[in-house]
Amino acid sequence: MQFFKVKTVEETFAMIEENISAIKDTEERPLEEALHYITAACVTAKENVPGFDRSTVDGYAVKAKDTYGSSDSMPGFLTVVGEVRMGESAGIHLGQGEAVYVPTGGMIPPGSDSVIMIEHCEDHEGLLNTYKSVAPGENIIRAGEDIREGEVVLPEGTILRPQELGAIASLGISHVTVYHKLKVGYLSSGDEIVPYQTEKLLEGQIRDINYLTIASLAKQWNVEVIYGGIVKDDFQEFQQKAQNLYDQVDCLILSGGSSVGAKDYTTDVIGSLGSPGVFVHGISIKPGKPTILAMANGKPVIGLPGHPASAMIIFMLFGEKILRKLKGEKIDKKPDRIFARITKNIPSAPGRSDYIRVRLFEKEGEWWADPIIGKSGLITTLVKSDGIVEIRSEKEGISQGDYVPVIATR
Amino acid sequence: MQFFKVKTVEETFAMIEENISAIKDTEERPLEEALHYITAACVTAKENVPGFDRSTVDGYAVKAKDTYGSSDSMPGFLTVVGEVRMGESAGIHLGQGEAVYVPTGGMIPPGSDSVIMIEHCEDHEGLLNTYKSVAPGENIIRAGEDIREGEVVLPEGTILRPQELGAIASLGISHVTVYHKLKVGYLSSGDEIVPYQTEKLLEGQIRDINYLTIASLAKQWNVEVIYGGIVKDDFQEFQQKAQNLYDQVDCLILSGGSSVGAKDYTTDVIGSLGSPGVFVHGISIKPGKPTILAMANGKPVIGLPGHPASAMIIFMLFGEKILRKLKGEKIDKKPDRIFARITKNIPSAPGRSDYIRVRLFEKEGEWWADPIIGKSGLITTLVKSDGIVEIRSEKEGISQGDYVPVIATR
Repeated sequence: MQFFKVKTVEETFAMIEENISAIKDTEERPLEEALHYITAACVTAKENVPGFDRSTVDGYAVKAKDTYGSSDSMPGFLTVVGEVRMGESAGIHLGQGEAVYVPTGGMIPPGSDSVIMIEHCEDHEGLLNTYKSVAPGENIIRAGEDIREGEVVLPEGTILRPQELGAIASLGISHVTVYHKLKVGYLSSGDEIVPYQTEKLLEGQIRDINYLTIASLAKQWNVEVIYGGIVKDDFQEFQQKAQNLYDQVDCLILSGGSSVGAKDYTTDVIGSLGSPGVFVHGISIKPGKPTILAMANGKPVIGLPGHPASAMIIFMLFGEKILRKLKGEKIDKKPDRIFARITKNIPSAPGRSDYIRVRLFEKEGEWWADPIIGKSGLITTLVKSDGIVEIRSEKEGISQGDYVPVIATR
Repeated sequence: MQFFKVKTVEETFAMIEENISAIKDTEERPLEEALHYITAACVTAKENVPGFDRSTVDGYAVKAKDTYGSSDSMPGFLTVVGEVRMGESAGIHLGQGEAVYVPTGGMIPPGSDSVIMIEHCEDHEGLLNTYKSVAPGENIIRAGEDIREGEVVLPEGTILRPQELGAIASLGISHVTVYHKLKVGYLSSGDEIVPYQTEKLLEGQIRDINYLTIASLAKQWNVEVIYGGIVKDDFQEFQQKAQNLYDQVDCLILSGGSSVGAKDYTTDVIGSLGSPGVFVHGISIKPGKPTILAMANGKPVIGLPGHPASAMIIFMLFGEKILRKLKGEKIDKKPDRIFARITKNIPSAPGRSDYIRVRLFEKEGEWWADPIIGKSGLITTLVKSDGIVEIRSEKEGISQGDYVPVIATR
């Protein structure tokens, strides 16, 4: 048997960073089906956005200098020479002393350099009284002001939020090259585990609720989950089912069996799947210490602890990081921690990271985090919580009123 | 023509609160397909969770008082009388001076009241040396400690996160009563608007990118979107298509045409769909002023402004609130605002709420928000942003270093 030194949370993140890289498979997807996928190539603008100078208001296109000095008491006078219709070319060229009506979003006629809002002028049968002066460029979006032709709009590795999809669509691009959707396999093990649909339990049996929580988290992250079922504590069967599932997926999750108990085959099964094998066995974290992370021939394998709250917290921390790296996500700016003030003193062992479930409430423009006390086996502590406070390993606990990072779970 | 007084953001939220209520249709869904649905009835426990006293560690079930006084230098001695196997009844009744091996999650034998971890004892061929004392209840989760039989585990109106699904599954319940998935219709209007897939634009034309951004936001919120296409500025056609789409959905979104321009038929079309009709026409907000909210025979209708960034911000603020109410969501504790410190002074007109796109960065345990300057017509300002700072209407701007609420968009 091999012995592993327990890793800190920081070391674990560093090892994930070092060991996991993006999958190779990419595909072209229509924008309507690309939400939350990751770009596998940069997106470059092949035209200006907008393609023409546009008005941002309903008003009259003018030469700005023709309005200088206009005021309520001393209006300026311009001649209305036409109207721009939405979706059509402006047509008319604007001369000195002239004005053309333009609706919001309409094209600015050549010769004009600004738009005066209808609120600031009056059209008296073709004679426009202007009550305000406008500056050159006022109420106009210039061609290319949003995106310039040739500009890299999105680098490779960008997650496609609604606004990124909008930006791509504005360029006349209707398909995008993305990394394919991750497939993750989930296999439960343990003689005591029965399908969660089991209505009546025999004594000592436990429903496989971790499958539901972990698979639901993965779905939230746009990952497909294949359920491998439940294996008994039998090495042969465990190895075979794990191998079978491993072959179909980009990442394998094994649940239960990661305690150093008599029937712990997880490490051996992981070892059998490929090299280099286990790189983290045990993390200095509470809850979730008996966590295993491995790489088997380029595919990550995650051995989760069995306690429901431990499994969720470990998967939210390290599982998400692994899956984001595997997906090809490079732009990692998501504010996935908020800062809140803790309502109580909480001691913590230095060298160990603690994750405390909390209720959040707002008071005078700040978030406060109120700890929920409960063992890591209790799923209801997570149901009652709005977030998880992180006490990093270098801290010897936190004091009432301290600012602490919180992972929001709502 | 009817005139409306522009509403503040706070008044608008209050009117949404007052006017919108949950849809009526509910359904039974299997837990695996219920993520992010809303409970339409409370969920009550019909059994204890866990169903039996369980060990939270690998160790030996004992009577706590038999370990009192044990230490490394002065071990206690107990007789090992058996082993509990995972998934099986404990069998043995534990007598004084006795110990039974129990793996993590295993059932505690009757007669014992605590578990001593294997790290703190040694089994010498049936004679157990204990090096530490344990307290009654230590390393045990009691039957019903997580959930008690008869307890209301989830009230009606709860959004089903992964942990809620886990909690329901732990009760032996495999289906849940939820409000049905919302169906929203989206109809674009404007002579200048063409499908976003259009490769080459004619002069003055604009691609319908708001459909993509708004539909993607709705999908993120577990809402189905039906696209009604694009109508020209023609009342007859607009009314007919809006009516047709309205009949199929729970909520109708109309995009474009909400400026007070010459071709603005949106208000009339909304009026034709049912009573009481428009309750907000214009909001004192920047960007997004020309927003229309209405109720037509119990279904909300949202008229969005045409500028891409305005449309997204309005939909993230008011659209989300409307859809959450309509979905039946009652537990509204999501920390959807984070607090950050602003890097610059920003003036704002009192009485108007401003929403400023920002980049977020972490510095010394706090979030800082750095404003992105750009017109509301520019989709790229949202691409570059990590969040949106809210300057509420009672403020006359914010000063460098102030704490401000931020809506995260990553």
